Formats: sequence, structure tokens, C-alpha cells
Amino acid sequence: MTEKKFSVCFEPSHKIINGQRGDSLLDLAIAAGTGLCASCGGEGVCGRCRIKLVEGELECEDHLQISTEEFAQGIRLACQSRLISNVTVEILAESRFDTALSGDAISCTLQSQPELSENKAFLPLRKVFLKLTPPSSTDNASDLARLKRFLKPVCPAEADIDYHLLSGLSETLREKNWEVTLSLLKTPGGEKIINIQPGDQTKATYAFAFDIGTTGVRGQLVELTESKVLAQATEYNGQIPLGEDVISRINYAAREGGLIQLQRAVVNTLNNLGNAMLSEYGLEADDISFATIAANTTITQLLYGLDPKHLRLAPYVPTANELPLIPARHINLSICPQAYIYTLPCVASYVGGDIVAGVISTNIPRREGLVLYIDIGTNGEIVVGNKDFMLTASCSAGPAFEGGGIKNGMLAKPGAVEDIELDTQNFEPKLSIIGGGNPKGICGAGLINTVSALLKCGLLGQNGKYNSNIKTIRLRKGADGCEYVLAFGREFGQGQDITLSEVDIDNLIRAKAAMYAGYQTLLESAGASFDNLEKVIIAGTFGAKLNIKKAINIGLLPELPEERFIFVGNGSLAGARLCAFDANAQTQAAAAAKMMTNVELSESTSFMDNYMAAMFLPHTKSSDFPEVYAALSKFNGGNT
Amino acid sequence: MTEKKFSVCFEPSHKIINGQRGDSLLDLAIAAGTGLCASCGGEGVCGRCRIKLVEGELECEDHLQISTEEFAQGIRLACQSRLISNVTVEILAESRFDTALSGDAISCTLQSQPELSENKAFLPLRKVFLKLTPPSSTDNASDLARLKRFLKPVCPAEADIDYHLLSGLSETLREKNWEVTLSLLKTPGGEKIINIQPGDQTKATYAFAFDIGTTGVRGQLVELTESKVLAQATEYNGQIPLGEDVISRINYAAREGGLIQLQRAVVNTLNNLGNAMLSEYGLEADDISFATIAANTTITQLLYGLDPKHLRLAPYVPTANELPLIPARHINLSICPQAYIYTLPCVASYVGGDIVAGVISTNIPRREGLVLYIDIGTNGEIVVGNKDFMLTASCSAGPAFEGGGIKNGMLAKPGAVEDIELDTQNFEPKLSIIGGGNPKGICGAGLINTVSALLKCGLLGQNGKYNSNIKTIRLRKGADGCEYVLAFGREFGQGQDITLSEVDIDNLIRAKAAMYAGYQTLLESAGASFDNLEKVIIAGTFGAKLNIKKAINIGLLPELPEERFIFVGNGSLAGARLCAFDANAQTQAAAAAKMMTNVELSESTSFMDNYMAAMFLPHTKSSDFPEVYAALSKFNGGNT
Ligand code: FES
Ligand code: FES
Repeated sequence: MTEKKFSVCFEPSHKIINGQRGDSLLDLAIAAGTGLCASCGGEGVCGRCRIKLVEGELECEDHLQISTEEFAQGIRLACQSRLISNVTVEILAESRFDTALSGDAISCTLQSQPELSENKAFLPLRKVFLKLTPPSSTDNASDLARLKRFLKPVCPAEADIDYHLLSGLSETLREKNWEVTLSLLKTPGGEKIINIQPGDQTKATYAFAFDIGTTGVRGQLVELTESKVLAQATEYNGQIPLGEDVISRINYAAREGGLIQLQRAVVNTLNNLGNAMLSEYGLEADDISFATIAANTTITQLLYGLDPKHLRLAPYVPTANELPLIPARHINLSICPQAYIYTLPCVASYVGGDIVAGVISTNIPRREGLVLYIDIGTNGEIVVGNKDFMLTASCSAGPAFEGGGIKNGMLAKPGAVEDIELDTQNFEPKLSIIGGGNPKGICGAGLINTVSALLKCGLLGQNGKYNSNIKTIRLRKGADGCEYVLAFGREFGQGQDITLSEVDIDNLIRAKAAMYAGYQTLLESAGASFDNLEKVIIAGTFGAKLNIKKAINIGLLPELPEERFIFVGNGSLAGARLCAFDANAQTQAAAAAKMMTNVELSESTSFMDNYMAAMFLPHTKSSDFPEVYAALSKFNGGNT
Repeated sequence: MTEKKFSVCFEPSHKIINGQRGDSLLDLAIAAGTGLCASCGGEGVCGRCRIKLVEGELECEDHLQISTEEFAQGIRLACQSRLISNVTVEILAESRFDTALSGDAISCTLQSQPELSENKAFLPLRKVFLKLTPPSSTDNASDLARLKRFLKPVCPAEADIDYHLLSGLSETLREKNWEVTLSLLKTPGGEKIINIQPGDQTKATYAFAFDIGTTGVRGQLVELTESKVLAQATEYNGQIPLGEDVISRINYAAREGGLIQLQRAVVNTLNNLGNAMLSEYGLEADDISFATIAANTTITQLLYGLDPKHLRLAPYVPTANELPLIPARHINLSICPQAYIYTLPCVASYVGGDIVAGVISTNIPRREGLVLYIDIGTNGEIVVGNKDFMLTASCSAGPAFEGGGIKNGMLAKPGAVEDIELDTQNFEPKLSIIGGGNPKGICGAGLINTVSALLKCGLLGQNGKYNSNIKTIRLRKGADGCEYVLAFGREFGQGQDITLSEVDIDNLIRAKAAMYAGYQTLLESAGASFDNLEKVIIAGTFGAKLNIKKAINIGLLPELPEERFIFVGNGSLAGARLCAFDANAQTQAAAAAKMMTNVELSESTSFMDNYMAAMFLPHTKSSDFPEVYAALSKFNGGNT
């Protein structure tokens, strides 16, 4: 073999692979097992394989799919880039499988991109085709003994057999003239025969990976032998009618029959998603041999019918964080009844398998440099760590990021203002509206971007109060104090003006202060500061829509060079999928869960101090936001 | 510790233990884990602890329970015998737990004798009591993690948990203030938590051991921690109405729904036996944590719902010989639903777990000397071997031993002639009748004893024909040739005479010839002869009633010194019980099953020759039966 010359590091998965001069970055990304999209197969026409050069140099041909500005920012097509030095590249969120999931109803997207696991030997479920010699008078071993004898060369440690298979064994073996396919599941004790099918069924091994959020549930249909994502789907969690958030669902579970209702509701959602993906791909439930699930602790308990009541009573103890492999039939998940479900381990009542999944999908337990992993939302989740330690916290930011508690707030749906430009002379707005058309409200991202814009033009003070000295028809007194009018109803032929009041802004400040104080407190607990961070990993569907600069402006994100931020999309789903492809990832997840120490922010005194200090735009401590302060200095003449 | 001076070998289990001068044989038998009865606790009054001195000397006090003749034969009470030399003693069949099972309806016998397994660490199921520290804010591990942490010191290898237990886990832990009892099952992969009960439940661990015969089913309720047999029960196999023998049941299983009916029928029998023992001992089904089962191959397959059709189609292949541990709920066995069933492994279609159980209960795989193990019956089963090899054969002897095919034959029930004395002058019989009273027929043992007696007085020739030269009213021509009248109907005020015709005798000769030819063929296959046998082990309920001398007279048993024969009663039940007490016995059973080579007698040419040679009383080869021939020489003046 020729000597490998250069190393390539793919972010955010932090997968490192060696390559030779001239190797295609797309090929390397595939070989490294990153989830890079390449819809045109590397022809340079689909424009999906976008990467960003972070460090080093690449040889790149000109291509129409990249604009001049993008090129200047380091954006490249992986399939058109060749290796000429050691490089670090980031696979952009939109080029990864797990991002760009739409949030409404069921939607499926067919994809067939390879995402090779590093080693086939680590598949958690494998299929093995065996041709047995039929019994004869000189070889009249039992059917099971015969099967095990022929299995031995490919599975040296004797595999247990699921006793449910015994009753059909004799017929299955004889159905296709002693040719059978075994499904072997990796278990803590070795391998277990969980299914036996007549004939050769090894051409494909299908599994489901699910991320069950409190609100949204996302699933992917994957094929294990070639590590492909074949379809994906998303739907609201069917438990929502029984309780909007986890606390109300824990309460609902205490009712007579409530727990079973909650369990059925979420399994029903999984089955709907599963059926949608199966029918899209022309498969049957029986074809699915394995499933992996990542969810927060409450949802995990509800899914398996475990009473969650102790999750909300001090000292907040789950029934189990690490669950055994559980047969699909136990919860009526519509896949092959012999199939098992792997569940990402949870850490504590408020740190679930979803975070653990995110942590392993971004390889935090193998990173040298310190990283901050954040999933911004009503319940923000934060991890600080690297290969040596991991601290986690869950942070009640409130619903502002999802448009909640804001007079004209709304979810990020068509009609939501998601961005704004303000004319610095007359303070007139230019709105970006999801789906175009008339504005109906402001979504979380719009809220952040609007506050950032108001601040930068001096209309809003750092204390979150409007500068009433500025005269414009857009600024007026309203029911909740001073407010800025993003859109007059009459402009768009609708009744209501869309406004942002000081009360709304105060809600946003509380939310961002909680997040920021969370990062800060965790970092302090680790004896570190923002400067020590090599990367800030932003996960989640909300995170994917964040404008880094504007989020820094309001102090939601720390002021760090922009290249230190990485978006990873749905890290939870990515982790679940990884655990379907690779049993080592399951081992990593268990190890990561054990490494993670939860910090209870509500019990930390420094959190309260940090929170108070962050109740300002961007922050009371100017030295932590020097550039933002510098830009704002024209309005307030220096420090506040 | 003082030096052990003498060694004691207990037959038939062949357990060897060292003792000191003066040690009580009863104490040694208990310490060695033999199944010796001692109902009076060693007071010398119950007379149950009967042993027979085979080799060496014992110091024995006089006791009323042993007759002078018995004493001369070496019979002793174990509790009244003290060690003064190396000895070999045999525990007599009537003094072991597994013998003396009556065959009719359900019968329970309460016993509470210790049968210590050699090492508690080898219990296949153990209970562990744990006092957990309740969770606190500084120790908020999940319930499962807490349980495993406290389990660690007593179970260093992490134990899997049955996922069915998760849903009740949190409540069970809290029910008795964090005190719980775990049931740990030994599995091939380590230990598995199969039950969790609040409080301390370790005082007793109950299990069932079953021997499922084609005709009769025997069960014992045992307690594992003290290795006690608490109750036993026996009942006809509920499958009998669906087919008298295994072949007709295999045919029945081929009908629509037939297999399920057969499965339900035998499970129903087990549940009836179980309930009878439970109610006798005041326990609930939930209290039974484990079950072991020994049965022939067909019954084993039917029990687990495995289609037996290939058992009777060449090349006669079972679905499985070695079964995994199977949850009780899978077959609706009425014990704790979390409990598992261990099944003695089978060897081939016609060599089942019942034989394997017998082989391990008599320790054949550890014996130096060659032994012959025989279970005489319609389907006679034969094993020849020792620690180096084991050959098995199944031998279709026909129903004569169970009184079948004999005009006045009957089962060994009240009214059956079981023995006879013949006046050598006038050939008048003195009958021994089961239960006393009037004779109704002849059972298998009676048949053997009658033929032996007829032969010894010269009334019957070695060719199985009556000597019509002898004139007695007892000998006459009947429908089936010449016949001997055991009882005239008028003597007992009943219509029918009870007779034994030459046709009946011919049936017996065929049956005994098949058995004898079976032993002989197996021995020849092993390159050995009867002289090489250290022991002949006679198992089974029929065997227990055999009179060795008389069985030798007719050539059912080989002519060997009487002390080489041992009766073991129900070896199958003994093996099943052993596997409940000792996981090592399970390992031994698996190893024994693998060591056993089945010899298909019907395909052996030497079997046919041996069979023909044995169609004589006792045998055509006089040199194999020198004493019998010598005794008969007065009638025929030497060799035939
Ligand atoms: S793969 Fe389509 S442009 Fe690169
Ligand atoms: S134990 Fe009762 S006589 Fe020996």
C-alpha cells in the first residue's frame, strides 16, 4: 500500500482519516463514515456536498454551485476538492443527513447516501447466510445443533437462540432446502440468534433510528450493511394532547391508566413514522430487524411504561438510566417481532439519552480540546467537556425561543418573521418572512435577530429599554410599555400590528441569560472559561437557524471567533443512527453517560450570580463582549 | 483440622467422601449429598436409612429394624453405623427420595430430608437479600443502578435484568424501605436478575423437578438452599387420551391443532402435580422460582410446542436436543411467571433427557469402571460406559413387562400376581398378590417370577414349552397351546382362571431377548463383555420390583454376582432434581449428552444374531449362564 500522506479532520463528528495527495474529499468523507450528502454521486451538479475549509488548503475546481462570497468564506464542494495538505473541514449542516427536517406533519425524504461505519464487524445486528448440509443417517444432529455447527465458523462464540424461534425452526430450515439467513444481535453476553428466515436475506438489513423529543419525533429508516439512510420522517409526539411538557406528562401518568395511555401515544407516533417510511420504501414492518431510540429521561421512561413519578420528587431518581435491550413486541413497536430496541442511556432525571446521543455523535468523549455543546430550547441542554470529563446541565430558559410568552410570538412556521434589517436613518424594517407572504408573528430566531438589530441601531438600550429620545412612528407606548412596530396591520391588510414590547424583550433577556449563565456556571465548575473552548457545538433544530453574530450581539452565545461555532443539527438522531450502525457507539454511549456529571443549576449560587450579570444586552461584563461593546460604544460612550 | 482417615463410597450415586473413625454413616451420606431418607432424624427408630455394606467393615449397634437375614446380607441402618475402615455402601432403593412412587392418581408424600449439594455456589438459582441506601441529593443514581451497585459485592459480574421487572422496580424497591430480595438465575452468559421481591425472602427458594414419562409424570417440590425434597406427586400423563405411545402422539401432532392440544395436555398434568404439591405444603405458584424437566425426546418436543414430525421420518432428527432456558410463562407452567425452566438435554430421537438424567444421577461420566445402565420397559433404554465413553440404545421390547400382550397380564396394581412359589412335588402355586386379596391377573414382575419358577421346577423347558410329560391339573391345553393355571376361578369365586400360556411365555421371551441382545450388542460395540462390568444399574419403577436372581434365571439380566447390581429407582427424576440443586449437574448433563453415542439396534446385524441367540431360557449360550444351567441340568442332563 502506498503511504498515506495527509490527515483530514471532519467536523462536527471530529472523524480523522488519512489520505493521499489528490484524494477526493467526498471519498474521504464517505470512508470516514461522516454523514455527507452527495445526491449527484459526486458529479458536481447537485451542490449538496458542501464543506467549509477550516484549516489547511484544498485544490478546488471552479464550480457554479458556490458563490464568490461563499468561496471566500471557505465553502467548497467536497466532490470537487482534492487533498494537498493536512486539513480540517466542516461538513455544513445542510449537507448532513440529520438536518433540514421539517417540523410539520409527517414528511419523508428519500436519500441513499453511504455512511460507512468504520468496521462491519461492529454492526450491532448482522445477518448471516448459511447453507446447511441436510441431515442423513450418518449425520442426524438435531436441527438446532446443525444450525449452530454451521454458524460456528462465522460466529465462534456460541450464540444463544431466542426460544421463540424454536417452534418454527424445523420448517424454516427445510423451506428453502436448508438455506437460511440468521439475524445475530450483539448482546452484553455475546451474540444472540433473534431471527431465522428461509433463503438468502442478507442483501439488506433494515433498522429504524428514532429521536423522540417532547414535542417532535424524528425517525430514519437505515440500511446497516451499507450504512445508508433510506428515508426519514418527522411528526409531533402523540403525547402532546396528554401534556405539553414533561412535567404535565409526569402528572398525567399518575392518573388511573395514564401511564399506559402515554406509552401507547408515543409508540403510536413511532409506528406512524415507521409506516410512513416503510411505505415510502416499499418495505414491511417484518423487514425491520433493529431499532435505536434516543429520548430525554421522562420520555424514555414513558416509552417503556416505567412510572415517572420519582423523576419529579426529590431526589429525582429515574427507574433506570441504562436499559437492557428490549424486544420490540414488549412495547408493540411495529417492526419484526423478534427485533430488539437499543435505547441510548440517560444520565439523570433531566439529562437524557438525547444529550448522550448528541455527545457521541460529535465525538466529545474523544476530543482533546474543550468543547461546549448546547441545545437551545425551552429546556436548554448544555455539556462542557472533552475526553477527560463532561459536565452537563439542564437549563429552564422558558419558551421565548419557541415564540412563547411573546405577545406576537409564534413557532418557526410560514408567516413568521425570521430576520429583519433596520434602516439606521429612519428605523424602517425590512422583514424576512418564512415562506414569504404577509407576516403573522415573530419566531424565536426572528426575536433574536430583531433585538440584535434594534440594539445595533441604538433604538434599544443595553438594559432592554427603548430609547424614547428617538422619534419614529415605529416606536410607541403600548399596553406593555414601550414597543417597536415591526409591521402595521394596515400595511398588510390585516387587523393586528406586529410589535415587540419591552416586556417581550425582557422575556428574551431572561431566556438568553439563563442559557448564558448555564454555560458560564458549567465552565466555572470545570475551572475553565470561554477562552478555553476549542469549539462551541450548536445542536437542535432551533440552533440550526441561529445567526451566530446576532446571537452574540444579544449575549445568547459567548463572543468567540465565528469559526469556533459548529452547527450539528439533530445530534440526538445522529447519535441514535450511529448506534444502529455501530455497536462500539453503544459502548461509547454507555461510557459517556457514566462520564457525565450533572450539575443542578437551580442549586448553584454562582448560577444565580451569573444569571443576574447576564440580564443585560449582551452582558454586564463588557470585557466578555469587547467587539459588541465597541460597536455599541457610539450610543453609550463606553462601558456601562 | 484433624486428618480424615477413611473413604466412603456411596452407591448408586458413586459419591465419595472422606470420614474419620467413628463418624456416623448417616452424617456422611448427608454431607456427600446423597438422597438418603432419615425420617426419625437418626434415632434408629424409623428404619428408613437402610444401606447395604458392599465392601469393607462398619461398626454397627444392634437394632430392631433389621432382620437377622437382612443383617447377614449386609443390610444396616446408616444412622446406627460407624466408620472403622474404607467402605463402599449402597443406599437401598427404598431409602432414597426418588423411589417408591406409587403410580396411580395424584399422590403426595411429605419428606424433609437434607440432600446437600456439594457447594452452594453452584445453585442454578439463588436469592440474595439487599439493603439499599435510599437515594439522596448527593446520591441520585437510578433505581436500577443503585440495585446493581449493591448487588456487585455478592455478584461481581454484572447481572442482566429481565426487562419485565423494570416496570415494577421503583415500587418494589420502596415497598419495604429499600430492602429487597433478588432471584439470580445462572445463564450461559452469567447471572440474570429474574425476580425482585420486597423484604427478605431468602429463607427458602422453591423449585419443581419433573420427570415426564410417556405414561407417568412424577414431580417433586424441592427447596434449594437446604437441598430438601418437600413433597412429591405422580399422575398419568394427560397426553395418554391423545395417543398411548410416542408414535401415536407424533401422529396426533400432525392434525390441525393437535400439537397445541398435546402441549396443553402435558402442561396441564404438570400444573396439576404442581398444585397438589403446593397445596400440600401451603405455597403459592408464585413461590416457585425454578423448574427442571427430564423427558424423552418426543415428550420434550411436545412440551415446548416443537413439531415432532421429523422424529419419525428418517433420518429421525429432533428440532433441538439442547434447549435454552425457557421462561415458565412461555408454556403457561403455573410457577412464578418470571421463573425459567431448565430442560435435560436429549441425545437423539430415541435417547432423551430422561436417560441423560439417569446417567448423571448415577455418575456414570465420572466412573472408572464400566457400567451398564438399564431402564426396562416397553421402550427399554440401555447405556454402557464410564468416564471415557457412553453408548446408548433404545430397545423395542414390547409391552410384556407392563403386562401387555399377555392374556391375563395387567399393570402392577392391586390384584396383580407379583410373585409365586411352586411346590416342586405337586406344582401347586403360592401366589403373592399386590395389595393382598384375590388375584386378578399377572403383572410384569409376576410374569418373570412365574416363568423362573416354572423353569426351576422343570415344568417349563428352556425352549419355553411346557413339559407335557408332567401330569398335574395345573397344566392343560388351552386356546393358545399348553397353559399353566396360576389360579382357578372357582378357588376365588370368580369366573376366569388365571393362566400362562406358551404364547404368553413366547412374548416374554421376545421381550427379554430384545433387552439382553441390546446390552450385548452395546457391549460388543464397546469391545467389552458382561465380565467387564463393574456395576449393572437398574433404573425405573419397573426395575425397582425386579428380583435379580429370577430375572437372571430367565435371562433378562446377565448372570453376574448379585452385588454387582444396583437399583436406582427413578433415575430420571433424580437427575432432574440434581439439576435443580446444582448448576454443575447441568453442565455435566450437557457434557454427558455430547459423550453419548446412539447405536441404532434395528440397523445392527449383530443385534439380530444376539436376539436370536437369546430366544431361549435363559439363553442358548450356556457358558454365559453357568449357574442357571447347572441348576437346570437335572432336567435336561447337561447342555442343550
Ligand atoms: S456530490 Fe453533488 S455536487 Fe458534490
Ligand atoms: S434415621 Fe431413622 S432409623 Fe436411621
